[in-house]
Amino acid sequence: MPYVSIRVAGKLTKEQKQKIAKGVTDVISEAAGKPKESILLFIDEESRDSIAKGGVLIEDM
Amino acid sequence: MPYVSIRVAGKLTKEQKQKIAKGVTDVISEAAGKPKESILLFIDEESRDSIAKGGVLIEDM
Amino acid sequence: MPYVSIRVAGKLTKEQKQKIAKGVTDVISEAAGKPKESILLFIDEESRDSIAKGGVLIEDM
Amino acid sequence: MPYVSIRVAGKLTKEQKQKIAKGVTDVISEAAGKPKESILLFIDEESRDSIAKGGVLIEDM
Amino acid sequence: MPYVSIRVAGKLTKEQKQKIAKGVTDVISEAAGKPKESILLFIDEESRDSIAKGGVLIEDM
Amino acid sequence: MPYVSIRVAGKLTKEQKQKIAKGVTDVISEAAGKPKESILLFIDEESRDSIAKGGVLIEDM
Repeated sequence: MPYVSIRVAGKLTKEQKQKIAKGVTDVISEAAGKPKESILLFIDEESRDSIAKGGVLIEDM
Repeated sequence: MPYVSIRVAGKLTKEQKQKIAKGVTDVISEAAGKPKESILLFIDEESRDSIAKGGVLIEDM
Repeated sequence: MPYVSIRVAGKLTKEQKQKIAKGVTDVISEAAGKPKESILLFIDEESRDSIAKGGVLIEDM
Repeated sequence: MPYVSIRVAGKLTKEQKQKIAKGVTDVISEAAGKPKESILLFIDEESRDSIAKGGVLIEDM
Repeated sequence: MPYVSIRVAGKLTKEQKQKIAKGVTDVISEAAGKPKESILLFIDEESRDSIAKGGVLIEDM
Repeated sequence: MPYVSIRVAGKLTKEQKQKIAKGVTDVISEAAGKPKESILLFIDEESRDSIAKGGVLIEDM
């Protein structure tokens, strides 16, 4: 019952989310030997003023 | 100081959140012997195009 | 497909984990109207020198 | 490559987020001896009807 | 600066972790158009008595 | 009731954790105007073969 959480800056299209969900599930299923249907995956689209790298908000870079 | 994070697909009413907050806190407090007031709980309502099971977005099922 | 993550300070017995898993799943299933078998739950037992409240490690309180 | 996730109730101004991002990154970099540019930080502003303390939603306190 | 957290039941070999890290990073980089070197990924190997499905610990299934 | 989760590669000494707990709590309390005693903080020390950057495990860099 693997759980996957993905956080990205900015919005994704539905097609991008579909590709990520399918591709990541396939990779984990194959590499770890877990059935695909047991894998639960969440994608969070975060705003650029709420993520920082090196102490600086992405929006300010 | 237990921390609880709950992620569900779709929206909940305030009454549903109240029941979850009270019920889950009671269960953990009793089972683990932790004071109720020390338990911090977050509920995240996620959109159905951002959760996948078996590599397929819930919205597409 | 709800996901639940619970973090507690110190160790729990298996019986405590069983009670938490069953009780929390029952509460969320009933309050949110989600099938029990769709609920995935993780319990993390954290060491007391890795959790702080008010800036002080629990081990030092 | 430290990862920091901060969840707060209610909204923050951009200035508050800038101070948190810079300050927290500085503290972790100095205390743990990690380069600042390797530190990734997320801030989540949660609504008051989705956080509970002691089994009661913050909005109802 | 995507962040990925993967939680699985039981232990993985180093080779399995290498495949997951490479494969998941490739998928997200391609689908979301993010540079590979910006993707930070954590794998957590959880014990079977700390994960539950449908209210039952995996170890007891 | 802010919640802070910090994940770092490798082990920290207790003194490092004390500095991080105190310093991060102070920063968030001051910047966000939250009482210090309401801030809950977790530090996770992760092994270097379970974190990847750019698809490569830190241990292999």
